[in-house]
Amino acid sequence: MGNTRLSTALVDADGHILQLWREATPAQQGADAPIPLLERMVAEGQEHIRRECNQTPVAIGIGFGGPVDHSTGVIRRSHHTQGWEGVALGKELHEATGLPAFLENDANAGGLGEALFGAGQGADSLLYVNIGTGIGGAVIIGGRIHRGAHSNAGEIGHVVIDPWRGPVCTCGKRGCLEALASGSALGKAARRRLQEESSLDSSLATLPANEVTGTKVGEAAQEGDSLALEIIGQAAEYLGLALAGATNVLDPEMIVIGGGVSELGDLLLAPTRQAFQRYATPPVAANTAIVIAQLGYDAGVIGAAAVALVECDLR
Amino acid sequence: MGNTRLSTALVDADGHILQLWREATPAQQGADAPIPLLERMVAEGQEHIRRECNQTPVAIGIGFGGPVDHSTGVIRRSHHTQGWEGVALGKELHEATGLPAFLENDANAGGLGEALFGAGQGADSLLYVNIGTGIGGAVIIGGRIHRGAHSNAGEIGHVVIDPWRGPVCTCGKRGCLEALASGSALGKAARRRLQEESSLDSSLATLPANEVTGTKVGEAAQEGDSLALEIIGQAAEYLGLALAGATNVLDPEMIVIGGGVSELGDLLLAPTRQAFQRYATPPVAANTAIVIAQLGYDAGVIGAAAVALVECDLR
Repeated sequence: MGNTRLSTALVDADGHILQLWREATPAQQGADAPIPLLERMVAEGQEHIRRECNQTPVAIGIGFGGPVDHSTGVIRRSHHTQGWEGVALGKELHEATGLPAFLENDANAGGLGEALFGAGQGADSLLYVNIGTGIGGAVIIGGRIHRGAHSNAGEIGHVVIDPWRGPVCTCGKRGCLEALASGSALGKAARRRLQEESSLDSSLATLPANEVTGTKVGEAAQEGDSLALEIIGQAAEYLGLALAGATNVLDPEMIVIGGGVSELGDLLLAPTRQAFQRYATPPVAANTAIVIAQLGYDAGVIGAAAVALVECDLR
Repeated sequence: MGNTRLSTALVDADGHILQLWREATPAQQGADAPIPLLERMVAEGQEHIRRECNQTPVAIGIGFGGPVDHSTGVIRRSHHTQGWEGVALGKELHEATGLPAFLENDANAGGLGEALFGAGQGADSLLYVNIGTGIGGAVIIGGRIHRGAHSNAGEIGHVVIDPWRGPVCTCGKRGCLEALASGSALGKAARRRLQEESSLDSSLATLPANEVTGTKVGEAAQEGDSLALEIIGQAAEYLGLALAGATNVLDPEMIVIGGGVSELGDLLLAPTRQAFQRYATPPVAANTAIVIAQLGYDAGVIGAAAVALVECDLR
């Protein structure tokens, strides 16, 4: 479930997508419009699958972009759209379909998907970091989501990295990793620099301020723009510091970076690895791979399916 | 196994010490003298237990102050004394006694001891932080030590907190938690302040510089010395920040603080909790208790016993 798109897929036990349907999320705020649509998509999907593929789905996994109570299938909070708090989405879909339905935070689902079917295959444990507009994450141990005691494990985006000089985060704290290294942080840092120094030689300086987004910073960096590269380098410095800290507590076998910003590839990864090497404990620094996620845009549906597969003991 | 003392104890499956022997660690560097002494202590202990208590020990747990390979029982590095690297201490004691023998890092052993028999009883997961001369730690999940992929989990002492202005750590990095909030860091911070400001109104100013240790800072704070309280407050600020960061990744049910510096009790804990509240994610901040360890000086032997009990499936 995304802010702009609802995707439904039939995924097999090896993580392969057999069928995929996408529809725009109704613009109306709250759950009133999307839930009936979601139920219709799932019902139509079930029917289509039975008829065309001669398959019978056995369970439903749902990835939601916010904190959920996975044990009851209830949405706790929605950061991006209002009206979802307290919605028992798991139960709604279970009742609409008769199938067991499992609700999970999308970062946890994405991390589990990468662990079972993506960049983390074969690793016993991993730290997954999803860098998009914000920064989410997940901890996978022994092929299972480590949710923690308050369903807050893996929330590396709100680890405070620089409370002294860091910008204020959307959560209200100063210097969270999200405020330093997310897609929005890249855009904001560029706008600040352009405002402070009017004579910067950067392609970003030719854009209206409100068009200087993280995406534009990424595009400029890929064309070698020095301001954009500097901003990404600074974000990577903070990211490497945060990953080193998390590694010293959790010591995962590997770190997988997903989300839109991860599409920068080595532009982001090379300086992140350098910072990680400086800040992590030496024997661990040398032996903890930091890699880009493999599932890309399919992470959402494959991750949601992974949740259902694990919950049903099919993986 | 401590730098100054070897302690051997008979501990029952409920974590109660039935017998305890202590001897000074031979001053000679390396393992040549301590190992025969340790073997003698264990053999004498076994004999004594059979005769006096009519008990038969079933396993040996050993806590060592440095990184170990728990699966082979081999010491990896010794930070404090030379000549221990590569010593197969588990095997040595197994061969000397005929009992299964399990070697573990002392912070891991201490954390497991607190989880099973101390402040963490009943908690499903905890982060244990041992603040003494240095800072060690452990992660306990589901009543087991979470060692991580490279036996480095729980090493919160070397999480880099302030690489910009923090002092250089014994590990060579700048701004590790250990360099900011350990016992030695307290002493060092006090000495620096006293050197920089000659007119400070503090009982510490009356001591020769080399006697201004972390212990003295603690004593002065307990008597209300404002410099000492300020230094502990600053250390607590960094500690709270580090705990909040670890909590956002791991989300333990509770945090247990042990080691000599934890004897400061609320002098350390109150400002640490305040900082933690500011830096941790709100719902988690409100529901994650930070408490002082309960096993005190017995943490070493009870923790080592806990390791053996868990390995033998007796807990």
